[in-house]
Amino acid sequence: MIREISIETRRREEFRDITAEVQRVVDESGVEEGTCLVYVPHTTAGVTINENADPSVKKDIITILAKLVPYHANYSHLEGNADAHIKSVLVGQSVTIPVSGGRLMLGTWQGIFFCEFDGPRRRRVIVRVWG
Amino acid sequence: MIREISIETRRREEFRDITAEVQRVVDESGVEEGTCLVYVPHTTAGVTINENADPSVKKDIITILAKLVPYHANYSHLEGNADAHIKSVLVGQSVTIPVSGGRLMLGTWQGIFFCEFDGPRRRRVIVRVWG
Amino acid sequence: MIREISIETRRREEFRDITAEVQRVVDESGVEEGTCLVYVPHTTAGVTINENADPSVKKDIITILAKLVPYHANYSHLEGNADAHIKSVLVGQSVTIPVSGGRLMLGTWQGIFFCEFDGPRRRRVIVRVWG
Repeated sequence: MIREISIETRRREEFRDITAEVQRVVDESGVEEGTCLVYVPHTTAGVTINENADPSVKKDIITILAKLVPYHANYSHLEGNADAHIKSVLVGQSVTIPVSGGRLMLGTWQGIFFCEFDGPRRRRVIVRVWG
Repeated sequence: MIREISIETRRREEFRDITAEVQRVVDESGVEEGTCLVYVPHTTAGVTINENADPSVKKDIITILAKLVPYHANYSHLEGNADAHIKSVLVGQSVTIPVSGGRLMLGTWQGIFFCEFDGPRRRRVIVRVWG
Repeated sequence: MIREISIETRRREEFRDITAEVQRVVDESGVEEGTCLVYVPHTTAGVTINENADPSVKKDIITILAKLVPYHANYSHLEGNADAHIKSVLVGQSVTIPVSGGRLMLGTWQGIFFCEFDGPRRRRVIVRVWG
């Protein structure tokens, strides 16, 4: 069972909570006990899992990443988005989550975030569920 | 086959070797050829794979992470653990390891480490094995 | 279905595109709809997915990682490769990619890179595909 989620990001850097969309794919799949892979087929975006209760957490993550990997530096890649490629490597292009009782086994405070590093753009997220 | 490992961490930051516990789940599962997912359902902890021979390696990792993501900074998240959330994103919330002959296919020097970034706490690790 | 890819790296730090080798394992497996795990059983290397069109991107990633995690610093691990262990943790030891129609579902610009951080060495990469 495989599905694609479509996302339209609105800023250059943005963490978008896609937990509900991913759970919907798990629902559709009918898988009760299994595993869910969320995969981002882009080189200037990523996906991670973190707190979805306090929105300031994602703001802090974006701020620190910008400090570690500055927007403008002496980069070789001349398209103006070298920072986004590097952040994608640091954050990662996929997350894998166990499924039990038909639910993603996320912790109480966990949400799945699509991480835009070079928006705004139309993006795709691939979700595969197996039992 | 799914199991939960319970961990009680003792310090704010601590890398705990959980390789033996994860291998035990693989043993119980009876899976000879397959895959093992180790998943951390927390937003201020993570899991990684690295050297388990020289304990100074995990010390260096903790030290560098603290340099990259300071404990105290001008964070928006006011619970005093913003650094732990960001480290969790950098390190990751899961590892996936191939299994062959009933054994985790870890390299000679590899161990699986639960990464505590906001302890001491009682933590959970979810392990799923499939064939 | 599991296979091992052998790599001989030539420099201390090097990103090697292994997309074709991984696709070959998917071909051999005969899996049309499934998932592919690429796993690195080393503690001073990693694997990631990023742009394979402009080689300057991998150069920028290596340069920024070296800035974040210096080769020489006041490390506890005395084998002279503490930086490589830490980079391995930041980049990660595995990638998981959905397979559809017998092809890795990589984005247009995505390639799979073996990341050498302490070469030159002979390295192994484990690829498992399941349907």
